Amino acid sequence: MIRVSVVGATGYAGIELVRLLYSHPQVELVHLVSQSFAEQPISNIYPNFKGLLDKTCSSLDIDRIAEESDVVFTSLPHGISNQVIPALYQRGKKVIDLSGDFRYKSVKVYEKWYGVRHGHPDLLKESVYGLPELHRNEIKTARLVGNPGCYPTCAILGLAPLVKHQLIHLNSIIIDAKSGATGAGREPSQGLLFCEVDENIKAYKVATHRHTSEIEQELSILAQRELAISFTPHLLPVKRGILSTIYANLKKTLNFEDVYSLYSQFYAGEPFVVLHHEGSLPEIKHVNGSNSCHIGFVVDRRTNRIVVVTAIDNLIKGAGGQAIQNMNILFGLDETVGLRSPGWYL
Amino acid sequence: MIRVSVVGATGYAGIELVRLLYSHPQVELVHLVSQSFAEQPISNIYPNFKGLLDKTCSSLDIDRIAEESDVVFTSLPHGISNQVIPALYQRGKKVIDLSGDFRYKSVKVYEKWYGVRHGHPDLLKESVYGLPELHRNEIKTARLVGNPGCYPTCAILGLAPLVKHQLIHLNSIIIDAKSGATGAGREPSQGLLFCEVDENIKAYKVATHRHTSEIEQELSILAQRELAISFTPHLLPVKRGILSTIYANLKKTLNFEDVYSLYSQFYAGEPFVVLHHEGSLPEIKHVNGSNSCHIGFVVDRRTNRIVVVTAIDNLIKGAGGQAIQNMNILFGLDETVGLRSPGWYL
Amino acid sequence: MIRVSVVGATGYAGIELVRLLYSHPQVELVHLVSQSFAEQPISNIYPNFKGLLDKTCSSLDIDRIAEESDVVFTSLPHGISNQVIPALYQRGKKVIDLSGDFRYKSVKVYEKWYGVRHGHPDLLKESVYGLPELHRNEIKTARLVGNPGCYPTCAILGLAPLVKHQLIHLNSIIIDAKSGATGAGREPSQGLLFCEVDENIKAYKVATHRHTSEIEQELSILAQRELAISFTPHLLPVKRGILSTIYANLKKTLNFEDVYSLYSQFYAGEPFVVLHHEGSLPEIKHVNGSNSCHIGFVVDRRTNRIVVVTAIDNLIKGAGGQAIQNMNILFGLDETVGLRSPGWYL
Amino acid sequence: MIRVSVVGATGYAGIELVRLLYSHPQVELVHLVSQSFAEQPISNIYPNFKGLLDKTCSSLDIDRIAEESDVVFTSLPHGISNQVIPALYQRGKKVIDLSGDFRYKSVKVYEKWYGVRHGHPDLLKESVYGLPELHRNEIKTARLVGNPGCYPTCAILGLAPLVKHQLIHLNSIIIDAKSGATGAGREPSQGLLFCEVDENIKAYKVATHRHTSEIEQELSILAQRELAISFTPHLLPVKRGILSTIYANLKKTLNFEDVYSLYSQFYAGEPFVVLHHEGSLPEIKHVNGSNSCHIGFVVDRRTNRIVVVTAIDNLIKGAGGQAIQNMNILFGLDETVGLRSPGWYL
Repeated sequence: MIRVSVVGATGYAGIELVRLLYSHPQVELVHLVSQSFAEQPISNIYPNFKGLLDKTCSSLDIDRIAEESDVVFTSLPHGISNQVIPALYQRGKKVIDLSGDFRYKSVKVYEKWYGVRHGHPDLLKESVYGLPELHRNEIKTARLVGNPGCYPTCAILGLAPLVKHQLIHLNSIIIDAKSGATGAGREPSQGLLFCEVDENIKAYKVATHRHTSEIEQELSILAQRELAISFTPHLLPVKRGILSTIYANLKKTLNFEDVYSLYSQFYAGEPFVVLHHEGSLPEIKHVNGSNSCHIGFVVDRRTNRIVVVTAIDNLIKGAGGQAIQNMNILFGLDETVGLRSPGWYL
Repeated sequence: MIRVSVVGATGYAGIELVRLLYSHPQVELVHLVSQSFAEQPISNIYPNFKGLLDKTCSSLDIDRIAEESDVVFTSLPHGISNQVIPALYQRGKKVIDLSGDFRYKSVKVYEKWYGVRHGHPDLLKESVYGLPELHRNEIKTARLVGNPGCYPTCAILGLAPLVKHQLIHLNSIIIDAKSGATGAGREPSQGLLFCEVDENIKAYKVATHRHTSEIEQELSILAQRELAISFTPHLLPVKRGILSTIYANLKKTLNFEDVYSLYSQFYAGEPFVVLHHEGSLPEIKHVNGSNSCHIGFVVDRRTNRIVVVTAIDNLIKGAGGQAIQNMNILFGLDETVGLRSPGWYL
Repeated sequence: MIRVSVVGATGYAGIELVRLLYSHPQVELVHLVSQSFAEQPISNIYPNFKGLLDKTCSSLDIDRIAEESDVVFTSLPHGISNQVIPALYQRGKKVIDLSGDFRYKSVKVYEKWYGVRHGHPDLLKESVYGLPELHRNEIKTARLVGNPGCYPTCAILGLAPLVKHQLIHLNSIIIDAKSGATGAGREPSQGLLFCEVDENIKAYKVATHRHTSEIEQELSILAQRELAISFTPHLLPVKRGILSTIYANLKKTLNFEDVYSLYSQFYAGEPFVVLHHEGSLPEIKHVNGSNSCHIGFVVDRRTNRIVVVTAIDNLIKGAGGQAIQNMNILFGLDETVGLRSPGWYL
Repeated sequence: MIRVSVVGATGYAGIELVRLLYSHPQVELVHLVSQSFAEQPISNIYPNFKGLLDKTCSSLDIDRIAEESDVVFTSLPHGISNQVIPALYQRGKKVIDLSGDFRYKSVKVYEKWYGVRHGHPDLLKESVYGLPELHRNEIKTARLVGNPGCYPTCAILGLAPLVKHQLIHLNSIIIDAKSGATGAGREPSQGLLFCEVDENIKAYKVATHRHTSEIEQELSILAQRELAISFTPHLLPVKRGILSTIYANLKKTLNFEDVYSLYSQFYAGEPFVVLHHEGSLPEIKHVNGSNSCHIGFVVDRRTNRIVVVTAIDNLIKGAGGQAIQNMNILFGLDETVGLRSPGWYL
């Protein structure tokens, strides 16, 4: 059994991670750290665990956590992550961080988009960007994983084959993404009240969202040159799920089969990438509840543009599920253990 | 034109009142008071008013408001209402208060259920309970109206004919009410976040909700003796609307026509009470957007029980719309002016 | 491995059953029967199964199903169930039926409330009402299980200890139930369109819903005399979940601890019944995604009434999950196999 | 008073038109034609009208309608519209058609995108595209108005100033639009069931939606040359509202003020176009319930792209409200009569 602790267990990303870990057959949950709810049973805060997981939340005790855990998941706001992780890392623990703090190659890019100094730039060299479909080999031997952002996971997986194979004009990439409200976390704020979000949709942080830089980093690596994208996130009146509608100009005329075959090869053997056949497109209800990323596309001959549609569950493939996928890799397990549930649809 | 000010204009009840007043042909909006948003244009806070009502919110200046207004609506938390109203009242203004502070005959009952001392018990003698269907004549000559609570409006209108005519056992009344989330206001709290309310329903304050006492007060007056009811509010994943499902044991065997005819007579001429014929029952989509209270019922011969179903828009008939109805009465206008919109359905 | 077939696999109850069976470690899915979608892969109809379960739906071939299955789940409209089950039963198969056809002791009651003749009244003697918390021993040796209705499961579990121990007046029981829209199935109809259900709540079939009779049957057995209840179902703008708010008059004065201790004893050892402590009440988000029934209560001294609140996932404990629980019992497995997931909360 | 009839009064667009006409001070509602609900009171079908509008729906009697009406609104599926309108037109009536049948300059384009023969291509010469912000003068003297589609209204108003002033590369236009489910009408179908639409978003008819051609027609006129756009509609889990996120490459470097000033001038005096200041963007809750189109934008210097966000209520500015705006123009009324309600926000 792998001894696992979660720091930041009572936010939405944290609790979903706990829910998934609870059903993982090779995991023993050791510490659930929550500053806000320390000393309270997790099942008081999330009564869905009543009768199943009545563990009490604890406050942050690095030494104890390090001693009693094989791997620690940190699900804290960026910057704070930054303060906790080095101590765990120095104690030889494997750490999978769900914040943005350890996703970057360049401190400069991080500091520009996050507007804060990075506390431990040295650790960025040790950390690996935890998108298994692109970096599986590096992850295998890593001890610090920067678990990808939800929007970036959904966008990068949709674009990687096209960018890698240079089929699109790199300056034409537009990602119009729509996310459920769990992505914004559980901290109370007026803009996230039911009566504000319900029966509404809004674009936010247009052209300035931090995830832009994360997407650009990964696509630039694939393209082997710097590129800039347009990224527009929207807040949906749903709890879970991200749908990305991605536009790019094709360099040459392609038909559906060409593109389908390219993606099939690129993602051959990937357990969590699902391609849709012609005439079918992903919807968030296809993936919510699962660790899968669904990908579909339409080739538009009139405009010579490709429209790629991708969907993930932001809390699973976009957070806790992918974190567990990374843990499975770090510990040499079958990558799908604990992650085989189909989406719920209903 | 009636010069109108609204104190507490930027809460949900307040802004809905403003929206209705904006379309009232005999109203001039003078002051929109908001402590949180003073000096900001109302259309920044609620962009639905952009290009229509760009008035700036002001902070509370009792003298100025009193001087420049004919009537003041106060939409403040209970207790606070209490501090503002006497000053306005002493300056000779008509006041319509949307809080619970001036709805009670008995200071004792108020203080027991609200758990605070009443600041101005003397004024309770002056105030009138603003449910026009029961107290129209008193309202006509009042200067201080305690505008009814949303749940009480919906429950009392459903029960009044039965209680008045002694057709039910008074100790058998159960009101199972379901409300939209606007009823809880705009103050951020975890329990009101989209991800908490969406795809959920919960009962809350079972047997202890303050509105219980308000319903009991009015039904006791009708019954001419003290009675106690069971009242259970529920939070729905919708913005607006209250549906009350009301149960009571019949004293004798009645059929649908008997009951329908009783209600028809009781509410003859009422512009905002709508009865459903046999086989049809109110739904909140029938009333949302309107000042109407819809009433339907089923007589269950098996159990000799009547089930009354009532629906109102909690922000209109349950708050701002009823407040305007009261204003119309206070100023001798046709009671329906500014309140003639049908429900939206969609 | 238990060889399992599902007849009626593509309705909402059917597909949820398939989703749960897919993750059951001792189940082999053999036939997914769907008249409407025969010869189509299940993953075309429900793309959440893409890449996981690409089995093709088949049309109904009783002989083949009987030959190749150890147990058959039938999830068909009542009456139709009736036509399929005897043939399977005669071929010696175990059958778990999700319709209302085999839930009744009395043909007369069935025929009165369903308004049709029962095709095989003889089989009613063989069938067992599949509520394990009340009938576990009978289920163990049964070959035909009438899987309980969703509303009855939620109501009966909430009332059983009170009725059994004669703590309430039997003629005072009122069940005000609220259900998600999956309960109404996937057949297109105007009343189930998104724009009709969203932002709405309505009561329907007041005092006439078929599940009334099912609840009365089971409570009458517990009470050892005939009783009649008031049951009001409501349609909620959510996909899953039932919340029942249940009212009854107490025969004597009780406090919370008395009642809690009674329920604790009654449900001692039950893996899927979860009691809430004082001050906490079930919500559908606590149970959606799980096979649990949560129960909480408030004792109201003012009215000497008890209010019991129960919640289940109508598609799991109210349908497919309970059906699997029954299968586990029929085959001597641990009752919780394949059913250990906590609720989703989000 | 203008005598008005509505043909197709009981679909979602039709009933919303009726709701708006009901409150129009210069309108007398004469015939509400509904084949499906002929001889039934409209308030049985839409109980929100109970006690307000109890008119009975009638079947289609062209002669009578023509005789007793000054203007007829037709809200029928395309193709059917086509069969009814010529008869009304020949009888000298003014007709405002909400279908796609009379929106096109070119029969060929219509027939290509709609896949049917146009029944009366001759009448296309008589009809005017009813977008007042672009064609007010033509509308004034028209007798047949092709009321614009919902998506085109929202897209064209967002792009018109940029296209007209040639500030963007015409081949770079991408419109990513998100619509509420009322846009799909009230005809039952599986894909529109609550449980299919709720908690979901999906793209549909990518690169092939008919409204593409309508947008291209109008933008090509403004650009004075043919252009092709990418248009992707999405179905949102909301009832009302369209949000369009529009991308285009700027021909030269511009800042926010430049663009704002351009739009201000272009739409000077327009009563139903509302611009958002820097840092604010339209959301559908700003416009739902109103006839306004809100427009905001972000100039992205990194990519030299402009992102325009527009929002309308698809049932009002995108259908019935705009139809009434056209009626007001046709009859020489103030264009805003009956259309002055602010959005609801809640």
